[in-house]
Amino acid sequence: MNEYFRANIDAMAGYVPGEQPQPNSQIIKLNSNENPYPPSPAVLEVLRNFDAEWLRRYPNPFAQEFRCAVSEALKVPADWIIVGNGSDEVLNLVIRACAEPGRKVVYPTPTYVLYSTLTQMQSAEIVEIPYTEDYRLPLAELIGANGSVTFIASPNSPSGHMVSTDELRKLASNLSGVLVIDEAYVDFAEENALSLVAEFENVIAIRTLSKGYSLAGLRLGFAIANPQLLSGLYKVKDSYNIDAIACTIGAAAMSDQAYKNACAEKVKRSRTKLAADLKQLNFQVWDSQANFLLVQPKEKNAEYLYQSLKSRGILVRYFPQPGVNDKLRITVGTDEQNQVLVETLSKLME
Amino acid sequence: MNEYFRANIDAMAGYVPGEQPQPNSQIIKLNSNENPYPPSPAVLEVLRNFDAEWLRRYPNPFAQEFRCAVSEALKVPADWIIVGNGSDEVLNLVIRACAEPGRKVVYPTPTYVLYSTLTQMQSAEIVEIPYTEDYRLPLAELIGANGSVTFIASPNSPSGHMVSTDELRKLASNLSGVLVIDEAYVDFAEENALSLVAEFENVIAIRTLSKGYSLAGLRLGFAIANPQLLSGLYKVKDSYNIDAIACTIGAAAMSDQAYKNACAEKVKRSRTKLAADLKQLNFQVWDSQANFLLVQPKEKNAEYLYQSLKSRGILVRYFPQPGVNDKLRITVGTDEQNQVLVETLSKLME
Repeated sequence: MNEYFRANIDAMAGYVPGEQPQPNSQIIKLNSNENPYPPSPAVLEVLRNFDAEWLRRYPNPFAQEFRCAVSEALKVPADWIIVGNGSDEVLNLVIRACAEPGRKVVYPTPTYVLYSTLTQMQSAEIVEIPYTEDYRLPLAELIGANGSVTFIASPNSPSGHMVSTDELRKLASNLSGVLVIDEAYVDFAEENALSLVAEFENVIAIRTLSKGYSLAGLRLGFAIANPQLLSGLYKVKDSYNIDAIACTIGAAAMSDQAYKNACAEKVKRSRTKLAADLKQLNFQVWDSQANFLLVQPKEKNAEYLYQSLKSRGILVRYFPQPGVNDKLRITVGTDEQNQVLVETLSKLME
Repeated sequence: MNEYFRANIDAMAGYVPGEQPQPNSQIIKLNSNENPYPPSPAVLEVLRNFDAEWLRRYPNPFAQEFRCAVSEALKVPADWIIVGNGSDEVLNLVIRACAEPGRKVVYPTPTYVLYSTLTQMQSAEIVEIPYTEDYRLPLAELIGANGSVTFIASPNSPSGHMVSTDELRKLASNLSGVLVIDEAYVDFAEENALSLVAEFENVIAIRTLSKGYSLAGLRLGFAIANPQLLSGLYKVKDSYNIDAIACTIGAAAMSDQAYKNACAEKVKRSRTKLAADLKQLNFQVWDSQANFLLVQPKEKNAEYLYQSLKSRGILVRYFPQPGVNDKLRITVGTDEQNQVLVETLSKLME
């Protein structure tokens, strides 16, 4: 075939979709950090009563109804919010607005692999700085690298640890580029860094409805930053990136904070119990502020356990990369699902 | 503010959203080429019965249910199809996979302005070649420019004319880059160029559900090309770009070809009548294979008519750019809407 693509696209590996069993299958799916509870009942109410006239016409380019619901729930002005087709799209917008050959994109590892993929696409320079063994932030090195974009996932995946607001403040005040705080898992955490957005013109906080709000299938995320920083992202955004249904459903879900918080509390209680049970089975379990646990089996091989669980109808996440290939990332399910997992692991550990 | 953005993003104009009155307003909206008829009743049926479990989980990364419906409707293999969040996203994927500084993006003008915007974002070289006065394709110049990407909208906007499959074949066989045939309006045309996709490895045909299927609010488009050409686009696509609802609704709409075709026939009959009525009012009216008409008032100023119609509750499209600023683009509405337009224009022409 001809050289149709840019050289760096040719050099990239093709996308391999994750394991996604059919929703009606009997598999216990603890591999993608989906919420085990259904979305707010308000969501189905919206679907049942949706007016097709909103589908015939182009949607609002700012997803205004959803922006207003976020504004109300988080007490930030609507024009400090940009909405994306999943928080992945918002990450994509940041990279396309700010990164190019000769500019650096910096992040501590291990973390969300999309940061690397998006930077490769944009032909910008990737600077990966490893976390310490116990997941303390390599603050001086991150400041020294001074990226055009610096990504910090907090809570981080796959580690589940939180970076403190104090450390993020130090980072923000010492960077001349944009600091992206990816708070995808923040609904299961004890704090958040939203206040930094008002403090620093270079900070953007990213949220998603995929985890806390049980809407991974809807593709809705958003970012909060000052309007001047958002203006660059709006320039690279597709005009009508949010469909009319997602906008309305998202607003309903966002307005039902009580439901979201109640589900998060259940997940957090289950997380505590699951962590204790896995420690009993002689796993090292890292403290988690997210809806998953990073665990290391002390007596068995991680890949063996992943394969053995899979063959018994339980999917967890195994990353083949060095540094994490001796660990598993396990999404916190319902107590019933976690119980089946623990019992199955218990037999495998015998 | 600091230099957070790439220089070419700073240089770009900010996005100005089009005029979008509320769906329940009394305005006659003939400015965005939406279909005047509602989507297939099958769409509402899907919404009423949608299972929230599909929202809790990540969607299929290939929008497989929708791809299969397209495959069946258009008789192309499913792996020759890529699905986008609107056809705008597919255009975006082509540019990101194929264009960069030092590579040329070529298209005849006037045409869809997004081709220019996307090329600017990617810092690639824009080569615009004007259509002749009567909208004949500047074939030799397009072949001579030999872009890494060449865009041909057919039917074209704002002209409404169709580029013949013979001319597109000549273009495809003489280009060493990718030829994108943007068939957004093809559901209102007498022919299409889909056969070229099988003939040439460098041809990609793009379709949307926004026009023919009355689903502008859903954001669903797709492209058809050989799997090797699509592989580059898949590399730059967000993993989960299509939400679970859009996937299922899109499949229902695509499977109801009879409904779509019946609506298109009504629009085409209305187009013929509207063209005749406007000629009676001494407008020049270009032949259109789309759901809009490009018209030139011979006795009045186009901008004056646009403003006067707007103040009377009728939105049509006025483009302030040279070459088209003496014309109006009018979406074909229902016969009743078109009648109100013609009567209002008749009074304005007195």
